[in-house]
Amino acid sequence: MTNDFSFTIHARDGAARQGSITMPRGEIRTPAFMPVGTAGTVKGLYMEQVRETGADIILGNTYHLMLRPGAERVARLGGLHEMARWPYPILTDSGGFQVMSLAALRKLSENGVTFQSHIDGSKHELTPERSIEIQHLLDSNIIMQLDECIRLPASDEEVARAMRLSIRWAERSKAAFERLVKLGEGRALFGIVQGGTNPQLRRESAEALAALDLPGYAIGGLAVGEPQAEMLATIEATAPFMPAQKPRYLMGVGTPDDLLESVARGVDMFDCVMPTRAGRHGTAYTRFGKMNLRNAKFAEDTRPLDEASSCPATRDYSRAYLHHLTKSDEMLGQMLLSWNNIGYYQALMAGARAAIAAGAYADFVAETKAGWARGE
Amino acid sequence: MTNDFSFTIHARDGAARQGSITMPRGEIRTPAFMPVGTAGTVKGLYMEQVRETGADIILGNTYHLMLRPGAERVARLGGLHEMARWPYPILTDSGGFQVMSLAALRKLSENGVTFQSHIDGSKHELTPERSIEIQHLLDSNIIMQLDECIRLPASDEEVARAMRLSIRWAERSKAAFERLVKLGEGRALFGIVQGGTNPQLRRESAEALAALDLPGYAIGGLAVGEPQAEMLATIEATAPFMPAQKPRYLMGVGTPDDLLESVARGVDMFDCVMPTRAGRHGTAYTRFGKMNLRNAKFAEDTRPLDEASSCPATRDYSRAYLHHLTKSDEMLGQMLLSWNNIGYYQALMAGARAAIAAGAYADFVAETKAGWARGE
Repeated sequence: MTNDFSFTIHARDGAARQGSITMPRGEIRTPAFMPVGTAGTVKGLYMEQVRETGADIILGNTYHLMLRPGAERVARLGGLHEMARWPYPILTDSGGFQVMSLAALRKLSENGVTFQSHIDGSKHELTPERSIEIQHLLDSNIIMQLDECIRLPASDEEVARAMRLSIRWAERSKAAFERLVKLGEGRALFGIVQGGTNPQLRRESAEALAALDLPGYAIGGLAVGEPQAEMLATIEATAPFMPAQKPRYLMGVGTPDDLLESVARGVDMFDCVMPTRAGRHGTAYTRFGKMNLRNAKFAEDTRPLDEASSCPATRDYSRAYLHHLTKSDEMLGQMLLSWNNIGYYQALMAGARAAIAAGAYADFVAETKAGWARGE
Repeated sequence: MTNDFSFTIHARDGAARQGSITMPRGEIRTPAFMPVGTAGTVKGLYMEQVRETGADIILGNTYHLMLRPGAERVARLGGLHEMARWPYPILTDSGGFQVMSLAALRKLSENGVTFQSHIDGSKHELTPERSIEIQHLLDSNIIMQLDECIRLPASDEEVARAMRLSIRWAERSKAAFERLVKLGEGRALFGIVQGGTNPQLRRESAEALAALDLPGYAIGGLAVGEPQAEMLATIEATAPFMPAQKPRYLMGVGTPDDLLESVARGVDMFDCVMPTRAGRHGTAYTRFGKMNLRNAKFAEDTRPLDEASSCPATRDYSRAYLHHLTKSDEMLGQMLLSWNNIGYYQALMAGARAAIAAGAYADFVAETKAGWARGE
């Protein structure tokens, strides 16, 4: 036994769980939302702000970082924590998803995937072993296996083929992780359940991965444009076959509503670019629902986004000023709305944790949704 | 006598002066650099950061603010200090310079200038009286007279015509200011000396404006592309004819070197977009000279910009990370370099003030320039 990774569930309320992951770099309170620091920065925020909103862990994108500044370079700079000034846990994805969505001239084989950088056209290869190596060079704490992310819709045969390839890649990822990572480094490997929206394939994937006895598991391949009901049905069909004592991470999700509904179905961890991306485009997530700060109705609204918030971006700046900054395409508008949104997502997760602990999660969800619907 | 505005010179060293302006909203230590908050935000910085760098006063642009969000709207929002969360002194320009450089379909008459907004084509008029009214609506503390800013090169006749029109506009500005502003509001009107690079015209302008007995005077019409030597010669030909006991403000200047040389010639106040604009484009001003963070030599340079600085942007982030952020066009790179640059400009002014007080300004200039030349 080492203290590299442990997960404890402190309370349950229906399928929802409130717990904590303990790692040498810090505790991760779950349900947890991980702000996305694509290229070693949570866009528009200082790391001090990210931390103060309540984030315990951030995510880094292997695809972006391997291309620029490069994994070996990040390692020479002391790793991602040191480079980006975030001493707390970091999760990195495997690079697979963004190879499929961003890179050019992708070529997939049993061994891995070759592709060209979207930045400079340079050629790269990503195998399960290289993905682990890169994430190790980045100094990641939670390392994700390489998986094949296919575009939907796809036939069941195609979904099954990719899912089974991802299982074989999980086995290779585990072997590579065990060769490379020493006990005490504070790292853990997560597997990724695939299988599209087919319950049988999801179950097959979950059970095969469970046999590998990894410290945590993600649900991949969702939040790629399907209706929310389909996503939630897939979670319901998948989560029961994932190890009950291990954290469940829903990749790339989602809206505040997606988070609440997924927590109700037993998900413990999330990441999404939505709060920062929406913030850059003038949208604020708040207790009162989504606000488009470009809307003229905010032009002379001197109230802050939410005076009851403890986040300075939310509490201290008038909507009128945010409207002006947004209309004027001023950086400060993007900075403040991104900060507000990360703050709101963290507050939402803090509320969920408290409600689960109190056995009142359903009430919390109902009240939160009523607030969004009511507006002000 | 009111406490609206007072200027005290505490020390002189050659023509350089170290002093302070006292206004109800705070003290302005001179020589002073005023960060430019074009549209009610110093681009990329939080006001708390601006303040912490040592800024006593910021500048707002009348042209931008009158068009968006509009002067009457800013007034309804409680004024610029309230809207932008900067409770300290604010200087606003008159709008004249940007009408000439940004607006379309300008038409000048004795009465003022009509133009079309560069944002939406709407038609506006700026007269000396309306400029004072707008600046009053913005809640400005140091209000600038409207002047005519002509493009150089221009004939002496044209320069003289515009300079004399600007004197008549100064008289109208003073009358409008006295009608509109009550004692105790904490406002002061500055005149603007024009006259191109012609010493006779500069003297005529300075003497005519001095007769109006305004609390302070600017030197306008410089830093528009002329060589530094020409700018400095013009300052030398102008400053002696400006009231010795009143602050002298060199508008729109400049590089760190421009600031040092102008202080040596008796200038007390500056504003310039250079530190924030350069920051957005990857340039850092430091004790070691200008650094282009896009340069590959910084890719693995783990040193901060200047470990001896008290500014977090300068002291706490590696050059390698700044290089990565800049190459990746990440907002945080622009934020940090803008912050560093404003911090450096403020540190430079603090150094100048201390050196003048110690009677060692020439040594300070020589050492500072040697540092830039030496690099590291």
